[in-house]
Amino acid sequence: MRRLRMGMIGGGPGAFIGPVHRFAAELDREIELVAGVFSSDADRSRAAADQYLIDPSRAYGDLAKMLQAEKARPDGIDFVSVVTPNHNHLPSARAALEAGFPVISDKPMTATLAEAQELAGVVKAAGLPFGLTYTYTGYPLVREMKARIAAGALGSLRKVVVEYPQGWLSQPAEGKQAEWRVDPERAGAGGCIGDIGVHAFNLAEFVTGEKVTRLFADLAAVVPGRLLDDDCSVLLRFANGARGVLLASQIEVGELNGLRIRCYGDKGGMSWKQEEPNSFTFHHLDGRTEIIRAGDASLGELATSRTRTPGGHPEGYLEAFANIYRDFAAVLRGEDASCLPRLDEGLRSMAFIDTAVRASAAEAGWVDLTV
Amino acid sequence: MRRLRMGMIGGGPGAFIGPVHRFAAELDREIELVAGVFSSDADRSRAAADQYLIDPSRAYGDLAKMLQAEKARPDGIDFVSVVTPNHNHLPSARAALEAGFPVISDKPMTATLAEAQELAGVVKAAGLPFGLTYTYTGYPLVREMKARIAAGALGSLRKVVVEYPQGWLSQPAEGKQAEWRVDPERAGAGGCIGDIGVHAFNLAEFVTGEKVTRLFADLAAVVPGRLLDDDCSVLLRFANGARGVLLASQIEVGELNGLRIRCYGDKGGMSWKQEEPNSFTFHHLDGRTEIIRAGDASLGELATSRTRTPGGHPEGYLEAFANIYRDFAAVLRGEDASCLPRLDEGLRSMAFIDTAVRASAAEAGWVDLTV
Amino acid sequence: MRRLRMGMIGGGPGAFIGPVHRFAAELDREIELVAGVFSSDADRSRAAADQYLIDPSRAYGDLAKMLQAEKARPDGIDFVSVVTPNHNHLPSARAALEAGFPVISDKPMTATLAEAQELAGVVKAAGLPFGLTYTYTGYPLVREMKARIAAGALGSLRKVVVEYPQGWLSQPAEGKQAEWRVDPERAGAGGCIGDIGVHAFNLAEFVTGEKVTRLFADLAAVVPGRLLDDDCSVLLRFANGARGVLLASQIEVGELNGLRIRCYGDKGGMSWKQEEPNSFTFHHLDGRTEIIRAGDASLGELATSRTRTPGGHPEGYLEAFANIYRDFAAVLRGEDASCLPRLDEGLRSMAFIDTAVRASAAEAGWVDLTV
Amino acid sequence: MRRLRMGMIGGGPGAFIGPVHRFAAELDREIELVAGVFSSDADRSRAAADQYLIDPSRAYGDLAKMLQAEKARPDGIDFVSVVTPNHNHLPSARAALEAGFPVISDKPMTATLAEAQELAGVVKAAGLPFGLTYTYTGYPLVREMKARIAAGALGSLRKVVVEYPQGWLSQPAEGKQAEWRVDPERAGAGGCIGDIGVHAFNLAEFVTGEKVTRLFADLAAVVPGRLLDDDCSVLLRFANGARGVLLASQIEVGELNGLRIRCYGDKGGMSWKQEEPNSFTFHHLDGRTEIIRAGDASLGELATSRTRTPGGHPEGYLEAFANIYRDFAAVLRGEDASCLPRLDEGLRSMAFIDTAVRASAAEAGWVDLTV
Repeated sequence: MRRLRMGMIGGGPGAFIGPVHRFAAELDREIELVAGVFSSDADRSRAAADQYLIDPSRAYGDLAKMLQAEKARPDGIDFVSVVTPNHNHLPSARAALEAGFPVISDKPMTATLAEAQELAGVVKAAGLPFGLTYTYTGYPLVREMKARIAAGALGSLRKVVVEYPQGWLSQPAEGKQAEWRVDPERAGAGGCIGDIGVHAFNLAEFVTGEKVTRLFADLAAVVPGRLLDDDCSVLLRFANGARGVLLASQIEVGELNGLRIRCYGDKGGMSWKQEEPNSFTFHHLDGRTEIIRAGDASLGELATSRTRTPGGHPEGYLEAFANIYRDFAAVLRGEDASCLPRLDEGLRSMAFIDTAVRASAAEAGWVDLTV
Repeated sequence: MRRLRMGMIGGGPGAFIGPVHRFAAELDREIELVAGVFSSDADRSRAAADQYLIDPSRAYGDLAKMLQAEKARPDGIDFVSVVTPNHNHLPSARAALEAGFPVISDKPMTATLAEAQELAGVVKAAGLPFGLTYTYTGYPLVREMKARIAAGALGSLRKVVVEYPQGWLSQPAEGKQAEWRVDPERAGAGGCIGDIGVHAFNLAEFVTGEKVTRLFADLAAVVPGRLLDDDCSVLLRFANGARGVLLASQIEVGELNGLRIRCYGDKGGMSWKQEEPNSFTFHHLDGRTEIIRAGDASLGELATSRTRTPGGHPEGYLEAFANIYRDFAAVLRGEDASCLPRLDEGLRSMAFIDTAVRASAAEAGWVDLTV
Repeated sequence: MRRLRMGMIGGGPGAFIGPVHRFAAELDREIELVAGVFSSDADRSRAAADQYLIDPSRAYGDLAKMLQAEKARPDGIDFVSVVTPNHNHLPSARAALEAGFPVISDKPMTATLAEAQELAGVVKAAGLPFGLTYTYTGYPLVREMKARIAAGALGSLRKVVVEYPQGWLSQPAEGKQAEWRVDPERAGAGGCIGDIGVHAFNLAEFVTGEKVTRLFADLAAVVPGRLLDDDCSVLLRFANGARGVLLASQIEVGELNGLRIRCYGDKGGMSWKQEEPNSFTFHHLDGRTEIIRAGDASLGELATSRTRTPGGHPEGYLEAFANIYRDFAAVLRGEDASCLPRLDEGLRSMAFIDTAVRASAAEAGWVDLTV
Repeated sequence: MRRLRMGMIGGGPGAFIGPVHRFAAELDREIELVAGVFSSDADRSRAAADQYLIDPSRAYGDLAKMLQAEKARPDGIDFVSVVTPNHNHLPSARAALEAGFPVISDKPMTATLAEAQELAGVVKAAGLPFGLTYTYTGYPLVREMKARIAAGALGSLRKVVVEYPQGWLSQPAEGKQAEWRVDPERAGAGGCIGDIGVHAFNLAEFVTGEKVTRLFADLAAVVPGRLLDDDCSVLLRFANGARGVLLASQIEVGELNGLRIRCYGDKGGMSWKQEEPNSFTFHHLDGRTEIIRAGDASLGELATSRTRTPGGHPEGYLEAFANIYRDFAAVLRGEDASCLPRLDEGLRSMAFIDTAVRASAAEAGWVDLTV
């Protein structure tokens, strides 16, 4: 087995998420970052190459050039990773796919639902693998919950509460990282809902295996002068009739990255939180409360195959992110990777953002979520 | 100072809340339970007197009889405590007030809003003290939060999330305790919303000092065959424009009594949970996170005056409950007790239940909360 | 059943532990405080009576007088509670016992081992009930651990770690509460070891059912100028060969009342901490981790008979303390109360203090603990 | 800057720690694994190369051969990483150093103190960088504690409690990973003390900046038939007079990797635990309790320079391990890396093991720790 070669689009100087993709892609040594259009400014792109410690001759300032040049090399890239702001997801992914390169992209899939539908067409036409880094579904214990719920551990699902509190946008003086995220031109129509609400939505569907069919959304731009929402409360209905609550906020002072989910059925309940990701709580109907921990003998294949350390040696965000890349590498090799977020997850998420933003703006009450 | 003498209405054999009121009333020795109509069955009432270790000759089977007999004694009761199911709150409190006795009553104030308004008239006509045992406002750390928020610790309030998860009604086979709570005849129009949602509502207004002015309610009877709601999601708007989320559920398997509240302003955030009530977290805008603990030197009078043990010696539910009685005793003695829940809190809570139940049933969208 | 009448010795103005004994004794209404020698100064004793809201004519300034007067009354006290500093435990208890009154005393039993042995003789001669308020054995979950370990849940005991960190004596400027505790004349030979180490010792033997037979002690007076130990590290051997570690300190800045215990056998492990007393963790040999919570259906009689609230409604220190008084009341009524700490626990604890202090001072290495 | 090339000794099929070194070395892309003697069996070595995805022609079955061949290549290794069982640390490191390669080695430095002293001579003679992977000193928050304590945040150090509970060796049927660790021929004279006790020792000296000068050790082989200690209790004295307690155990059923440390001075206290490594608690003398979290604005250079994700995106064990490699890479590049564990830490740790094992066996009481 040889290492797969990755070309990155985006992730230039000052970006947070570029290095994270690099860490994640390379952690298991199945993938190697070898080229990139880290910036549309060729000098800045080369500066990034220096930081990534890759060959500066493979730092491009132009996407078309990279695709062409890498295609021509015998050791050229095998796939492309898109880590730009949202509005560049579609053009970047389209160019790569049309040039014959599989694509893994940061979430959300695109800036708008229409773009996502367009991209879906491109993906299907290309017939190439497409993946999305919904990081939090990469946590082994999240996958264990999914497996147990699918196997009936909670009985019939009744209730889901998924929350994603952050506080870093509680003030108007946004820093560099925040800048594009609060700009409708680059982020798309959703602010908080598209940045983190969509993670919560994806996580809820991933863990429970149930699809959201209706929603009520109340989105607000709380910080004076902000153009996009920074606080979201969304009520959900799932296909099986279960109820859900999805809360996401970026103005809750002091909250860091507090994604958490609780699921209840008629036979039990489970809860997990991202900031302490190596265990979850499992309540049984008979009153027993178990803590399921990474490393436990009872864990199934979905979790153990994506765990790198023994119990008690905490894994974190980068390892979860790496699991998404590992799934993607498996797909590129023709193996199965049932947990990899792909087109369907991407389209559903974009429909979620779009529906929530429009329903909230129109004060439309309960609306259907259709994809 | 002499001990005040209390007569109880309700709290007969098998009741959970009667003994709790007794513990709470007597903890500080300012009040003594001496009489009661523990049941409308005189034999059962006497059996309860045996359990409470009070004089059996003062266990009555009839309220009018108790009020008359106790009034005639030189050592007769000073006030009445109403601990019956909701539908008996109004007649019990009215009879007592009209006989000249101050009343402290379990929450919610009555079974319906109309009854509450009627009772409010009786209270005003009688000109006697009236209190409600919104227990959770009795926790010293909750009062500390209230005091700090009132003093500006959070700046301008932006967001409140108050949750009250329970799991004990997740199955249809309800036991004794649950029985009247799921019966519209005795509980009133609200199930979960009236039993625990109302605590969450009261706590949110108490801690923040802001009033709810609008709400969106989604109430459900999840367990098959149940007549009253057992799961509630309510979105809130406060008078100052702050947003709120109020979640209450009795079908979340494994949750015990997980009331918790998080409040955020433009200068900070605070969070507290009832199951570990002796501390709260305080996030400052500059990134500092403090744990404020019972016994800390920084605590103010509202908290320290209602704390009985040094830091690290946990106080719990009974002590919080006792603080409500201590407030009530203070009022009876003509002292100040700014935290005691009274008519206003009672009426607002009943309006909350009534509005939420009707709005949810009508799928009415956002509605005003008026009292 | 009538309420038992209690006379208190000690607990005058400014004392912390007097009111705690009052709360605890009266919580279940089986006992009533009616008299006391709250201070040897008659005026101060009456001032305390005012605070306790008891009849001032039964506030005495002299123990002999109280015993005589109360004996003569038809409604006189049924027993005596000793809550003085340690050096007064022996004379107080002796006088009460010799006057025919059962005694419950704060711990440690006396100021010195010799006094304890003397008192043991008095108790045996009197043939009257004698109890000690080792508070922490009153927690329902502690009793549940004891019951499960006795039933074999851990298999053969191998290791115990019991820790009692506090920080309130980390500075030399001791306040009122601290004063007698750091004075050898009043506290006895042990400082921290006698104040809190002895709680840890008692808890370890109570929970495990095993007796300590040898120990190695390293006691220190860390704060400059202090005469008694304020920091203790003690290694233990139990009769069955299990090893133990007992740590107690009063100079660990920021620690409140952090008593905790972990027990391991060849089949499992358990851990509990006093500051969150309503649950414990139970590790099974097969890797499962359970949280056992107050209110769980699996709890046994020892725990449920001493629990007053449903699960999730936290009980705390006063309720645990009250359970000791409830045990004592049961004994006075001729019932069984297997958990009540009595002479044997008192003597073993005093031997522990005495042995540890002497062994540490002599740097004697491992020494036997004999009683 | 080019990537440094690493050759590994050990880490063959079935080993846990080899892949961990690989993850850690490569995480920041400053180092690349390119060669190895993964096993003394050439076939097994090649099998490991397959798993590591490195060029099979650089998988050697003989150390001398690797050193010679790699030296001859223009792209040969820059340094050697020793990840064998303890008894091979000395011969491996010596051969590499004498061939001119810097060495980073797993801890403990060697199997015995005599070997460590011998290796120290070799290191000094070679004049080459030498590092040890005391992983837990790589956690950013641990480094923050070190920096704050050095800056006086705790005042004068008084007390350290460092605990390292594990349960994975609680049964005699040891699996593959455990095998060499319980064999005196391969592990050295210390079992638990050398495997994890030494981490606790190193952490205590690292965080506090104080050196241990005396100790009392009580080591036991608890599991029947075990030849090396599996449970250790060690009391410590530091050079400044502070007291310490060091507990390590591998028979505490259910404990995973519970390393934790609490430090107290006359001005404050701090505590941290490895299983939730991204924060620590800081108690101030005035009663304030702060939670210091990864990402906080108040963190200093030692922590922030070794953090890869924003606050709330948890980092874990691999990231901490990678920080040691990053320090080592910095040293190889001639930069400063004050936190890298080197000879001094290695020798002190070996002296700690040696002294503890001998003192415990001889029941020698308090003994000096000299290096």
